[in-house]
Amino acid sequence: MTKIERVCVVGAGTIGSLFAGYLGSVVEIMVLTRREEHAQALNQHGLRVTGQAELHTRVTASTDPAELKDPNLVIIATKAFSVESSAQKIQGYFPNAHVLMVQNGLGCEEIVKRYGNWPIISGVSFMSGTRHSDTHVEYELDTPTWIGPWAGSNATYEYVLQVASLINHSGLKAAAYRDLLPHQWSKLIFNSAINSITAVTDLPHVKAFAKEDTIADLGNLVHAMMDEAKSIATERGVSLADDPWEMNVKAVGQGVTGGDTYAHIPSMLADVRNRHQTEIDWITGAIVREAAKAEMPAPYHETLYRLVKAREASWSLSINKMSNHSADKEGIDC
Amino acid sequence: MTKIERVCVVGAGTIGSLFAGYLGSVVEIMVLTRREEHAQALNQHGLRVTGQAELHTRVTASTDPAELKDPNLVIIATKAFSVESSAQKIQGYFPNAHVLMVQNGLGCEEIVKRYGNWPIISGVSFMSGTRHSDTHVEYELDTPTWIGPWAGSNATYEYVLQVASLINHSGLKAAAYRDLLPHQWSKLIFNSAINSITAVTDLPHVKAFAKEDTIADLGNLVHAMMDEAKSIATERGVSLADDPWEMNVKAVGQGVTGGDTYAHIPSMLADVRNRHQTEIDWITGAIVREAAKAEMPAPYHETLYRLVKAREASWSLSINKMSNHSADKEGIDC
Repeated sequence: MTKIERVCVVGAGTIGSLFAGYLGSVVEIMVLTRREEHAQALNQHGLRVTGQAELHTRVTASTDPAELKDPNLVIIATKAFSVESSAQKIQGYFPNAHVLMVQNGLGCEEIVKRYGNWPIISGVSFMSGTRHSDTHVEYELDTPTWIGPWAGSNATYEYVLQVASLINHSGLKAAAYRDLLPHQWSKLIFNSAINSITAVTDLPHVKAFAKEDTIADLGNLVHAMMDEAKSIATERGVSLADDPWEMNVKAVGQGVTGGDTYAHIPSMLADVRNRHQTEIDWITGAIVREAAKAEMPAPYHETLYRLVKAREASWSLSINKMSNHSADKEGIDC
Repeated sequence: MTKIERVCVVGAGTIGSLFAGYLGSVVEIMVLTRREEHAQALNQHGLRVTGQAELHTRVTASTDPAELKDPNLVIIATKAFSVESSAQKIQGYFPNAHVLMVQNGLGCEEIVKRYGNWPIISGVSFMSGTRHSDTHVEYELDTPTWIGPWAGSNATYEYVLQVASLINHSGLKAAAYRDLLPHQWSKLIFNSAINSITAVTDLPHVKAFAKEDTIADLGNLVHAMMDEAKSIATERGVSLADDPWEMNVKAVGQGVTGGDTYAHIPSMLADVRNRHQTEIDWITGAIVREAAKAEMPAPYHETLYRLVKAREASWSLSINKMSNHSADKEGIDC
C-alpha cells in the first residue's frame, strides 16, 4: 500500500476545517473550496485550530481540482446535500485516491460512485466545533470518527486501518471497523428521531425526549420512532452496535444528577433556526427509503420526514416573509 | 319557553366581542370579563363592531357575576383552556340560563357540567375577526355558527331553534341541528390535522396540504391523519356531515385558479407564532382520547399531539430564551 502523504479535503466547513487543520501536522494538505475568496484566505493565512488544541497549518487551497496535486486520500466533508456537486467537481481527477465520506445519514456513497471509481471509505463522525472564520475553527467535542470500507466499492479494511492510524497520529481520534453498518445505523436511527423532532418542536434534546409517563409525553414518540427504525434495520439485515433508545436515555441523563443542564441543539435544529437546508433527506428520508426497499410501513418516519420538508418549504412562502405576527388577530374558524 | 331578553357573554376576546356586539342590537347584553380594566372600558365606551357591519352597543360589564342581572342565555366564548375557570366563576349563579359553548374541539361541555346544572348547547363557529382593542372588534369571516343540544344535558332542540333565531335576528348567522356531532366531528378532524401540522411546520394552510405526488409530499400526511380520525369517528358511532379531506382540498383550491393565493393562518399557528398556549388538548388531544375510548391505535394523532405539546414546552426552556442562533456553530454529532 502507498503511504498516505497527501490529503485533499473537499469542503472546509467546520468538520472539513478540523480534518485539514489536524492532518496538516502529519501530511501535506490541500483544500478544494467552493468560494474563490475562501481559497485565497487559506493560501494566505493557513488554517488555525483552537479549542482542544492550538494548531496553525499551511494548506494549498483552490476552487479548481486541476490546480491541486494528486492526493492519496480525499475527504469529502461537505453537507450531504452538497456531496453531488463535490463529486461532480472532482470527476476525472485524483485517480490514485481513496475517498473518505463523513456525512450524516445514509446514501452519499452511492452518489460519489456515479462520478468515479475511487475506493470509498464510509465514516461516522461525532466531532463538533465552531467555525469562527474562513481560516479559524474551534474544536469542541473531541470524539472518535468511526470508519470502515464501503461495501459498494473495492476499499479494503487494511487501507481503512491506515487511514485510522493517520487520523489518530494527527491528534484527532478514529476507530476502524470491518463492518461499519451496525455503527452507522445506530447513529442514523438515533439522529433520525432526535434531529427531526427537535427541528419541528424547536425543543433542544432534553430530558423530555426520554419521558414516557403520560400519553402526551414526547418520549413515547421517540421510542415508537426508534422501534419502527429498528424493525426496518432488522429487515434490511443490519444488527445494531448500540441501542438508539439507550443512547437517548443516556444522553439526556448527562449533567448534574436530577438537574436539567443537558440541552443539546442538534445540527438539524440549528439549521432550522438559521433557515438553512437540513439533511433530512439523508437521515429520516433515508429510513423512509429503506422501509420502502423492505416493503415495510414507516408511519412515524414518513410523518417526521414530511413535517421537516414542509418546514423547509415554509421559508420560501411569500406570506411568511411578510407575515405580521399580530397577537390579536384570531378566530375560531380553524 | 321564556323569551330570551338578556344574554351574558363570558370572555370578550374576538368571538365573545362579536357575539356581544351583534346581540346587543336585539337583547340586553352583559359581559363577564377577567380583567377589571376591561370591564370598566366596556361600561364606559360600549362595544364597537366594524368590518361586516358598523355597530355600537351599550353593555354592562363586570368581573363579578354577582353584579350582573340574571340572564336567559350565557355564551361561554373563552378559549378551550379557560373554560374551566369561566365555569368556576359562574358556579352558583345564573340559575335560569342555558349555556352556549363555542370552543374549538371536543370536551368543554363536560367541564361546564361539573360546575352547574345549566342546559348546555354545543356550538361550532367559523367566524373570525381582529380584536383592535378592549372595546373594538372587526368582523371578517361572515360564516354561520352551527348549534345543537348537547346530549349530556337537558337542552332541547326547540330552545336551540330559539337561540339560532336570536343570533340570525342580530345580523350574525346560525344554523340549528338536532344532532350537532356529525358537524362537530367534521370540523374537529379537519382542524386536528390542519392546525397541528401548521403549528409545527410554520407553513400556513396552502396547496401543499393537498399534494400527494411524491412520498415527501405533505398531503400524504394530512390524508393519513384524516383517515385515521374517520375510522375513530365511525367506531365512536359518529357519521360525518362533510368529508374532511374534501374540505381540505376545497379550501386550498380557493383563490385564483392555478395560483397560490390561498394561504390561511389557522388559530393554532397564530398561537404558536405568538407563543400563546394552543388548544391542542381539545383538538388533536381530543381525538387521541376518543381513540383510547374506542381502544384504537392513533399513531398520527398521537405524534402531532406530542409534537405540539413539545413545541409549547420549548417556550419555557431557559436555554431557548437565551439561545444564540449562530449560523456557524455546528457539528456532525447529531
